[in-house]
Amino acid sequence: MNKPTLTLIKIGGNIVDHPDALSRFLNDFHQIEGEKILVHGGGKIASELSKTMGIEPVMIDGRRVTDSETLKIVTMVYGGLINKQITAQLQTLNTNAIGISGVDGKIILAHKRNHPSIDFGYVGDIEKVDAQKIKSLIQAGFVPIFAPLTIDNKGQILNTNADTIASSLAIALSEAFQVHFYYCFEKKGLLKDINDDNSSVPHIQIGNIQSLIDDKTIVAGMIPKVHNIEMAILKGVHQVRLCHASDIFHIIQENKALGTLFTA
Amino acid sequence: MNKPTLTLIKIGGNIVDHPDALSRFLNDFHQIEGEKILVHGGGKIASELSKTMGIEPVMIDGRRVTDSETLKIVTMVYGGLINKQITAQLQTLNTNAIGISGVDGKIILAHKRNHPSIDFGYVGDIEKVDAQKIKSLIQAGFVPIFAPLTIDNKGQILNTNADTIASSLAIALSEAFQVHFYYCFEKKGLLKDINDDNSSVPHIQIGNIQSLIDDKTIVAGMIPKVHNIEMAILKGVHQVRLCHASDIFHIIQENKALGTLFTA
Repeated sequence: MNKPTLTLIKIGGNIVDHPDALSRFLNDFHQIEGEKILVHGGGKIASELSKTMGIEPVMIDGRRVTDSETLKIVTMVYGGLINKQITAQLQTLNTNAIGISGVDGKIILAHKRNHPSIDFGYVGDIEKVDAQKIKSLIQAGFVPIFAPLTIDNKGQILNTNADTIASSLAIALSEAFQVHFYYCFEKKGLLKDINDDNSSVPHIQIGNIQSLIDDKTIVAGMIPKVHNIEMAILKGVHQVRLCHASDIFHIIQENKALGTLFTA
Repeated sequence: MNKPTLTLIKIGGNIVDHPDALSRFLNDFHQIEGEKILVHGGGKIASELSKTMGIEPVMIDGRRVTDSETLKIVTMVYGGLINKQITAQLQTLNTNAIGISGVDGKIILAHKRNHPSIDFGYVGDIEKVDAQKIKSLIQAGFVPIFAPLTIDNKGQILNTNADTIASSLAIALSEAFQVHFYYCFEKKGLLKDINDDNSSVPHIQIGNIQSLIDDKTIVAGMIPKVHNIEMAILKGVHQVRLCHASDIFHIIQENKALGTLFTA
């Protein structure tokens, strides 16, 4: 039996922080047919609110150190402000959005990161996704909009990387769906020339990733992203497209081969 | 055919603002059998956050005037912080809570309050509750936890009184359920003597409300609450109990007649 298709899109700060870009993207997202899920990142609003409240954000290796005050801020900004604003905008378009997080329904169980030398605070590493509960929301006619928060088995809310949330959801839903995962970021794909937005590699089979790392096509900051994508495909995700959110309409509605497609 | 029972509880700032009282209440809420819904109010946290951010809260007739910055704060605090903290605590107890608001699924449609002389800002008056979507969440096994936010038909998020949200939900769900609505507040019921917590009137039939107003048993601030309750019963809610959240366990689990029961 063919599995139904599910479109899963992750957007980050480059969209969330810009109301016009966000509106355009949500308009495109609204037009996607069939089952769909949106995962949004945090963006700059949490850092700005921290500063207004006199709490200086602390980043280590690009990850936010989350003390208890910062956890309150991300719970408010990610789980409240951004999540409900996106949901409200989609509802005006008649997409039946429901704004939730991994805390709700204990859909994404995580544990506090156990790092040998750095205490990241209330940062979660994902253990398990309850795909059945997501399916039950979809079957009830809702389009889930996920804020990047998870919960541990003691009821502690944890700040969790939105990329990891999106790929964990994609993997968990692959048993029931043919998941098309669109991993949107600030570039137009995996670029051969970082300064040329038209240089994206059109298609990568995951078996070729190592040689693309060896020949320096995949470099530096892209390596963890690509490994994340590789893992998703190895664990059953049908395809992953690394692209810019502004190209989603052309890719999905107009069948244009923009960005970089990863397949098995 | 007998309708299934649904327990709907509204808690306000006197519980939400006190972590110990909130934990005890959630423990009691967890133990309630059958279908249930929780509506929570805002409490002091939004005002405190406003002040930290240099925005002085403005209240007129006990209602918060909601300018666009204040709307962001209540969306963060009610829809994010309080809602997810309650949801996380219930999930530890294995109550399958899902934290939402009237924005999600456009479950509670409202319009911006149109007052002849006062501009309350982004404050909502409820037009319609989508009971079918709430039922679909309940049927999918979720216990909805509602933050006091609604949406208008242009996608504007609106700050909305939690008492009104709770009674509107109770009314809308009465077609499908026998709704037992517990309206928790800071007193032990409708008190004959405001200084004596043991003086609550045990039972009021709504036909007697006017004479109780005439003989000054129901006074001042209680009058709008009682009219709210009267309306709920006139519109089909099976029973409303006005009580203190700390008595919920005794009332529901031990069948004690605490607080004030209102019936047709």
